[in-house]
Amino acid sequence: MAKISLLLSLPILSSFLLFFPLSSSQTLPINVWPKPTTISWPIPRATPLSPSFKILSPYTNHHLQSAVARYTRLLLSEHYYPIVPPAVNLSSSPPLHSLALSISDLSSPLQHGVDESYSLSISSSTGLANLTAVTVWGAMRGLETFSQLSWGDPPVIAADVYIDDQPIFPYRGLLVDTSRNYYPVEDIMRTIEAMGANKLNVFHWHITDSHSFPILLPSEPELALKGSYGPGMRYTPEDVKAIVEFGMSHGVRVLPEIDTPGHTGSWAGAYPEIVTCANMFWLPKGLAHWAERLASEPGTGQLNPLEPKTYQVVHNVIHDIASLFPEPFYHAGGDEIVPGCWKADTAIQAFLANGGTLSQVLELFVNSTHPYIVSLNRTAVYWEDVLLDPLVKVDPSRIPRETTILQTWNNGPNNTKLLVAAGYRTIVSSSDFYYLDCGHGDFVGNDSSYDQIGSDKDSDGGSWCGPFKTWQRVYDYDITYGLSEEEAKLVLGGEVAMWSEQADPTVLDARIWPRASAMAEALWSGNRDQSGKKRYAEATDRLNDWRYRMVGRGIRAEPIQPLWCRTHPGMCNVVQ
Amino acid sequence: MAKISLLLSLPILSSFLLFFPLSSSQTLPINVWPKPTTISWPIPRATPLSPSFKILSPYTNHHLQSAVARYTRLLLSEHYYPIVPPAVNLSSSPPLHSLALSISDLSSPLQHGVDESYSLSISSSTGLANLTAVTVWGAMRGLETFSQLSWGDPPVIAADVYIDDQPIFPYRGLLVDTSRNYYPVEDIMRTIEAMGANKLNVFHWHITDSHSFPILLPSEPELALKGSYGPGMRYTPEDVKAIVEFGMSHGVRVLPEIDTPGHTGSWAGAYPEIVTCANMFWLPKGLAHWAERLASEPGTGQLNPLEPKTYQVVHNVIHDIASLFPEPFYHAGGDEIVPGCWKADTAIQAFLANGGTLSQVLELFVNSTHPYIVSLNRTAVYWEDVLLDPLVKVDPSRIPRETTILQTWNNGPNNTKLLVAAGYRTIVSSSDFYYLDCGHGDFVGNDSSYDQIGSDKDSDGGSWCGPFKTWQRVYDYDITYGLSEEEAKLVLGGEVAMWSEQADPTVLDARIWPRASAMAEALWSGNRDQSGKKRYAEATDRLNDWRYRMVGRGIRAEPIQPLWCRTHPGMCNVVQ
Repeated sequence: MAKISLLLSLPILSSFLLFFPLSSSQTLPINVWPKPTTISWPIPRATPLSPSFKILSPYTNHHLQSAVARYTRLLLSEHYYPIVPPAVNLSSSPPLHSLALSISDLSSPLQHGVDESYSLSISSSTGLANLTAVTVWGAMRGLETFSQLSWGDPPVIAADVYIDDQPIFPYRGLLVDTSRNYYPVEDIMRTIEAMGANKLNVFHWHITDSHSFPILLPSEPELALKGSYGPGMRYTPEDVKAIVEFGMSHGVRVLPEIDTPGHTGSWAGAYPEIVTCANMFWLPKGLAHWAERLASEPGTGQLNPLEPKTYQVVHNVIHDIASLFPEPFYHAGGDEIVPGCWKADTAIQAFLANGGTLSQVLELFVNSTHPYIVSLNRTAVYWEDVLLDPLVKVDPSRIPRETTILQTWNNGPNNTKLLVAAGYRTIVSSSDFYYLDCGHGDFVGNDSSYDQIGSDKDSDGGSWCGPFKTWQRVYDYDITYGLSEEEAKLVLGGEVAMWSEQADPTVLDARIWPRASAMAEALWSGNRDQSGKKRYAEATDRLNDWRYRMVGRGIRAEPIQPLWCRTHPGMCNVVQ
Repeated sequence: MAKISLLLSLPILSSFLLFFPLSSSQTLPINVWPKPTTISWPIPRATPLSPSFKILSPYTNHHLQSAVARYTRLLLSEHYYPIVPPAVNLSSSPPLHSLALSISDLSSPLQHGVDESYSLSISSSTGLANLTAVTVWGAMRGLETFSQLSWGDPPVIAADVYIDDQPIFPYRGLLVDTSRNYYPVEDIMRTIEAMGANKLNVFHWHITDSHSFPILLPSEPELALKGSYGPGMRYTPEDVKAIVEFGMSHGVRVLPEIDTPGHTGSWAGAYPEIVTCANMFWLPKGLAHWAERLASEPGTGQLNPLEPKTYQVVHNVIHDIASLFPEPFYHAGGDEIVPGCWKADTAIQAFLANGGTLSQVLELFVNSTHPYIVSLNRTAVYWEDVLLDPLVKVDPSRIPRETTILQTWNNGPNNTKLLVAAGYRTIVSSSDFYYLDCGHGDFVGNDSSYDQIGSDKDSDGGSWCGPFKTWQRVYDYDITYGLSEEEAKLVLGGEVAMWSEQADPTVLDARIWPRASAMAEALWSGNRDQSGKKRYAEATDRLNDWRYRMVGRGIRAEPIQPLWCRTHPGMCNVVQ
């Protein structure tokens, strides 16, 4: 009772048959996700893990110690069974009794560009394994790889295997929006744990928005007390510290975003005087053009750059965030300034009547916040809108390239090109490829357009960025597509985004995983094999396997195939 | 960071503004899903539920007793809090101490067309509530309604409310496919429990398919022993009995489907001699046309109607299923006969060479199974293909209208029309509206068509029936669209379908709920208000609320809106 849409793709299929002969040898008997850059395993065999197996680490770095303890536990208790057992022989040598860590630079902090490389060797003859890394964070990547080389009960591990590994892109992120819907701390931690397992390294925490202000800040507690969803739905400073520490122990940076000056309706609970158009219906009565909206989705409100008190509050917020989050990047938002919302304010009306422009209003805000962010030793990250919005944007001189990174989300490769061509370091979160929320329908109610068989709503899954971004689409996206070699150097990496209009703890894991895993591999070691071909069938089988291992680890990742496809390797492909 | 695709729908929006003025009075202070046919609550007030509250039922029917015990527990322990508390006054009368049941026909079994009507009154002055129903099953519907009229801790319940209720359509189903991926018994029971809460009444259990044969049948145990995914992934006869009983206690029929003669690859484990083209790669080498496929998706195999042993096995299976499931409908499948698979068999080749047709091959099968099904006092249900497939179908004389029901899944209202015009009772499961699996991408691997920015795969979420069917689309579908009044009488009802190529226990709840709830209301009391308008905003608010109550009851239904929309009633609409 299910058809494959192959009819449409037969011409593509035919050319595929000519150029992409695949053999079963491309399926490794053991799977590490993301695939390491180089892996050598000349004779696939395995050796038992000694019941007294230990990770030998002479280092006192407590994040590393936490990781070592965690991986020791995992190795002895995971007992993961690939449905198709790896076709390897058990070595007759003694069991592996230890993994020795060797780190050359213990002081490099977890920040953008830190060395994440590692080398790993497991020798069956000596009963020893060695993990060498420049930094603590590279060692964590190697520990994860080591854990994925093990399976079974009692556990065995791949033997006589040699891995050299490091990422292609230094920025491999996941955005989670905790404003539209709230997530308890345990959901955030479980997500960060899964990120570490996928070698993703930036948890972009979109903390606040118009819908709620869930973070309790010491200097501005009223923002959360009056702007959160309620007492059980606020992150305390202690929560934040615990999350940041948890991230460190998993090699995951926690990058905070306080979206300003748009997306700030929730600030009006505490400070109505600094927010324009707050608590208004988002579409004015008699709306004739989309341009007249007060917000791009329900939940109105923008900070008022002409109101001095705005800066008092915003500076306090920035200060508190910088104190709570050691991360050297500070995401200031800057997206989707809606003209109608500012125009609803009488002071702004007067400013415009005197020949001022909305872009000047935004520049006032940026001029009064960007230098402050920089003064706290932070690099400011903004959404692309501050540079590319057709109506409300700032002059590039207001956002110096040395202290600014821009994040693209519109128009696929085209806007990436515009940002790097303008000289900005860029993070790619194209909504056409990397938005995990798309395709589940609009959340806005009372919309008659569904009442038509064959309406527009039907063609895109009913959401502005529909359809759903499949793991294949995420996996196949080349984030430097169309860029020159020089331009490509400005692309720091990519980030999948879990906006939460229609997500909360009930669906968090399945919306993120394994699609974020697909990006994780593409950004770590690429989406192509050594001959330059995309890793179609091989990646499907491995991702399917990895998904099951994640489920075993407590991550409710969505299934991508019938179980039958795992028990019948190769049989679920389009080409055998 | 999210836009609404309103640009496209502004013309529709404008006409909407003219014709659909909505007021906040359309939001009831208390919500029952699906909305009862008639509800009268002249003065919205509530009364406390006595801590010693009891449901008074003098009846010994043990399914009813089980329901009474369950709802008593639920009423005293649910403590559901609407985010926006109902705007009602507490009655000064004594607490409600009992609900008295009155049933006139205790013997009607749970089967198609059984009377599900009930009347409910809750009086604050007497401290008594009365539930009157013709049958036990109608009483269960009323108990569910009663439970949804209650909220809070300590619990209160709507008082001085009068409800008369019965469904529009007698068949309101949900299909779950347990062959592509396996679900433990507890997942099936949780799903049936949620069905009862939504007043859905048919759990269509698509038990077997090519991928696995997970049911252990007394006469043919080898089918499961060799065709299931493994020892932990089989339903025993005891499991089936428990599921059927559980269904009865929730007013949910359990309708078994053993799909034949197609979709039977898993039978080849036990009986390779009765299955054609089993275990072959689904697309023959050098495939030039989709018509040459061996299956419509990976997992080949069809029963061989020319092989006498086929009928020995199939009759044993039908006999065992009829023994295990009291349900008077028996779903025999009959969909997607793929010519290439039968043509791979030498005996069928000879039959065709002698002037036989594939349709005759299918007729042989139907002639040898349909009368046997009927002899066991079962009505046979088939997928529409047996009548409408362009290549392989049977003459209507082979499937008499009195003993046959057809289920449509292709071409939306058009095929419904074809089936009822041919005089068949029809169940509507249009894949354009009611397939819950669509839009999550293909599961088939090794497909190069994803490697194109702007490929066909991008436009439909990568699955043949994409995009994702939103709850709005499910809710708005009129299953008798385009039919005459006479034709419409043959439409028994509708069924949402949870095919499991990309679903398993990790995502089951969120894929089904609240979208199945949307169909549940449309089929119970309709998708229009008293003036004939579709219930846009009002239904959104109520479904959102109902979704939260389901989550509280342990059903991980997906969120449809930010929590903000509940705390700001009306503000998330397109029209206020």
